Amino acid sequence: MSLLIAWQLKDKRVLIVGGGNVASGRIESVLAADALVTVVTPRNGLHPTTARLIADSHRVTYHDRMFKGPEDLVNVDMVLTAIDDVVASREISDMCRRLRVPINSADNPALCDFYFGSQIRDGPLQIMISTNGQSPKLANLIRKRIEQHLPKCAGKAIERVGTLRMLLKERAPGVGGVVGKERMKWMVDVCTSWKMEDLAALDDTTIKKLLDEGWEKKRVPKFEQIVGKRRRLLTTLPTPPLLGPPILAFIGGAACAALIYLAHLRN
Amino acid sequence: MSLLIAWQLKDKRVLIVGGGNVASGRIESVLAADALVTVVTPRNGLHPTTARLIADSHRVTYHDRMFKGPEDLVNVDMVLTAIDDVVASREISDMCRRLRVPINSADNPALCDFYFGSQIRDGPLQIMISTNGQSPKLANLIRKRIEQHLPKCAGKAIERVGTLRMLLKERAPGVGGVVGKERMKWMVDVCTSWKMEDLAALDDTTIKKLLDEGWEKKRVPKFEQIVGKRRRLLTTLPTPPLLGPPILAFIGGAACAALIYLAHLRN
Repeated sequence: MSLLIAWQLKDKRVLIVGGGNVASGRIESVLAADALVTVVTPRNGLHPTTARLIADSHRVTYHDRMFKGPEDLVNVDMVLTAIDDVVASREISDMCRRLRVPINSADNPALCDFYFGSQIRDGPLQIMISTNGQSPKLANLIRKRIEQHLPKCAGKAIERVGTLRMLLKERAPGVGGVVGKERMKWMVDVCTSWKMEDLAALDDTTIKKLLDEGWEKKRVPKFEQIVGKRRRLLTTLPTPPLLGPPILAFIGGAACAALIYLAHLRN
Repeated sequence: MSLLIAWQLKDKRVLIVGGGNVASGRIESVLAADALVTVVTPRNGLHPTTARLIADSHRVTYHDRMFKGPEDLVNVDMVLTAIDDVVASREISDMCRRLRVPINSADNPALCDFYFGSQIRDGPLQIMISTNGQSPKLANLIRKRIEQHLPKCAGKAIERVGTLRMLLKERAPGVGGVVGKERMKWMVDVCTSWKMEDLAALDDTTIKKLLDEGWEKKRVPKFEQIVGKRRRLLTTLPTPPLLGPPILAFIGGAACAALIYLAHLRN
């Protein structure tokens, strides 16, 4: 079993050794986490996507050469290697471990301090599926199934609730204590009594109204009291598939009884 | 955004500073990842769960005292603090960063190298939901929704596929190259053409049969050819809730027609 964690890379220095397809995926992942990236690999091994990422992002520094040695690890906070050379991978991993720099070596589990998993992203929402190396394909299939069942508006709802929470903290500041507990309880009440689609429909004006009518009066207003019925109509139409079969069966039952009655009349 | 990763803690040394409710959850998480744990906290602050974990696991060492200083960090691979003292938390975090020891300080995002998220575990399957600190409550609600839609047998299926993969590697060894690609393709074909419940129903005998009848003959046999119909009957019965409403509606329809007929007779 692994310890699944959300590593913070904002403005941290990540060294990528390699420039192929796997390396390009790694670069995208750490850029999404706001890292500062250095790529070390000879230009002839550069995948088009890697080349594009190097050209497009001012957060990526590129060195057209092989990995040199410990001098490449100075002030580096994380190393990701994606090269075919198993011996070189092992050397880099050993250096990193001596210097206590977290390392992932693609396709070499034994050389890794951590693994990547199958991921879902939707705004501030991130989900990782790990099978602990047992089956990457099933991790992928489970990811797809989760994507299908995830509320479409989950990322948006989380972002809006994050804003609500921030503005609430401005109104009722303080760490811990009574006010901290009251804030947390009210936030939990809002999140559990409102639907996710309703939370996602909040905007800056309605967030202010929710704080005025809710937090200030120590209650949780209904969605309609704050936002109105407008959005509700769009998002909560009944699903027809469940109604279809009973209606058809009702008509069928009535038709059967009618046929029996008609047959009876003829006799 | 964070970088979600699966950190490897097998036989790594984790220091937990604190003994309350949060600390007990941390201890459970790192023990599940096979870490060696040291807990430092005065006995009078020990939560019953923490006390039980210390007493029950031979992988937990306990020191009945306050955190001392850098000497407590020698040979430590990760530090998790869960204490109310913000000043002490900051001091420990600063020391860890100087020594490049990854640290999480409960309730102090600024002092953390990584965060924890809402988690699901089912055998080798692990899923983490992170809202990047925006809404722990929504993370929790999303976790529950995912749990509802996760195939019941997912963990078991992953474990069985892991065994299949391992035995296949024994039959057709070698890293990368043609055989590596063939192995990967066959595994993907099995995972996509068999249902998850079927994969979960594999045992050691049927795994061997699948390799004999499938891999050796360069094909993917159907579930019935390998395991037989036995399990299928147990797992794919139609779900009654969908049949209920139509049957009731049919009866209702017939009853209505009959009532109309009876009313007609009386006239």
